[in-house]
Amino acid sequence: MTRDHKLPSSCTNAELIELIQLLNRDKQIHGILVQLPLPQHIDKSLILRLIDPKKDVDGLTPHNAGLLMTGNAVLKPCTPAGIIELLDYNKVEISGMDAIVINRSALVGKPLGFLLLERDATVTICHSRTRLLTEKLRRADILVTAVGNRHDFLLTVDMIKPDSVIVDVGINKLDGRITGDVDFESVKQKASWITPVPGGVGPMTISMLLKNTIAAASIE
Amino acid sequence: MTRDHKLPSSCTNAELIELIQLLNRDKQIHGILVQLPLPQHIDKSLILRLIDPKKDVDGLTPHNAGLLMTGNAVLKPCTPAGIIELLDYNKVEISGMDAIVINRSALVGKPLGFLLLERDATVTICHSRTRLLTEKLRRADILVTAVGNRHDFLLTVDMIKPDSVIVDVGINKLDGRITGDVDFESVKQKASWITPVPGGVGPMTISMLLKNTIAAASIE
Repeated sequence: MTRDHKLPSSCTNAELIELIQLLNRDKQIHGILVQLPLPQHIDKSLILRLIDPKKDVDGLTPHNAGLLMTGNAVLKPCTPAGIIELLDYNKVEISGMDAIVINRSALVGKPLGFLLLERDATVTICHSRTRLLTEKLRRADILVTAVGNRHDFLLTVDMIKPDSVIVDVGINKLDGRITGDVDFESVKQKASWITPVPGGVGPMTISMLLKNTIAAASIE
Repeated sequence: MTRDHKLPSSCTNAELIELIQLLNRDKQIHGILVQLPLPQHIDKSLILRLIDPKKDVDGLTPHNAGLLMTGNAVLKPCTPAGIIELLDYNKVEISGMDAIVINRSALVGKPLGFLLLERDATVTICHSRTRLLTEKLRRADILVTAVGNRHDFLLTVDMIKPDSVIVDVGINKLDGRITGDVDFESVKQKASWITPVPGGVGPMTISMLLKNTIAAASIE
């Protein structure tokens, strides 16, 4: 059963806090997801901390993020977990590979970095302040891009290593259609494996959310 | 005031749990540190989770590790925080630098990776399964080594970039004396800046522990 508690964007911190505390106590509810981004007047960090870690199907509470760091997480953030699942399902070797993630957020880059390290990849996290980015990207066996700003960044065929694995987490609106960070048609010729946008990582994120909800329902 | 609660190594999980719960409740106590490593029969992950995050001066509870990930930590793990303090005190530029950390533990490598990312370095985490390690190390502007196994790994002068910054977190016992991961005498000629062992990162770790204890005493 899914309940959609849609508060108006004008709601106060107090109203949102009250709702989360209510859902934390409700034994019929196994998973709570706060849809981000929140309006500016809402204290995101405070709100995320209030979710019962056992119901935190987004894996974003400090407690669950910390468990991820030590390899003890049950509820892992959905996008990073979905990427690992995609790679595994497609038998992409991770161990020993040089992986680069272009994203340093707590939602994607950092947790994905952990999961790749756990699987024995060597991990580099790049971002807007990275110098000589292209030179670095050309050394990546596995390249995950999650920039989502196609005006500033487009991954083109000259920027990748031959036969590398390309995972596109970017979401850009371009001429009314959704596209990723990658110049897909040319890059797919040179890569050994590539995820499309839409239809690649996005649906995996949703699957992982459901998987987490089932896991959450099983937590004592 | 420091109280040293020394339990015998034969103590049970239950005895250690009881002690931590007692210290969590004791208002005279502001900081709790569980000296690692623990005996094998003790459940380290369980024990660390029990420490009140507000008294967790080692920054090792899942809650505090998670706050570190989002840049909201008050109590940061002592060794990584001490390294940043050392770099800052010596006016080492971090932003935009290529930093490599040889260590992927939850104690050093992962939290240090966060702190360096927060300061706009591009961060690579290397470990025992990293391929072509030397080739990578030669590209590092800031190189932090925390291997601590001098029989398998010694950072020699040919492995570093000229004028790079070398931080040695390794602790090895060699012929009865303490030494780091680095062939200090030769490497210091080529590096722009280097920390010695003993006397470099070690004392910083202890200072950070005291700093965290003061911070913990100020938490409401």
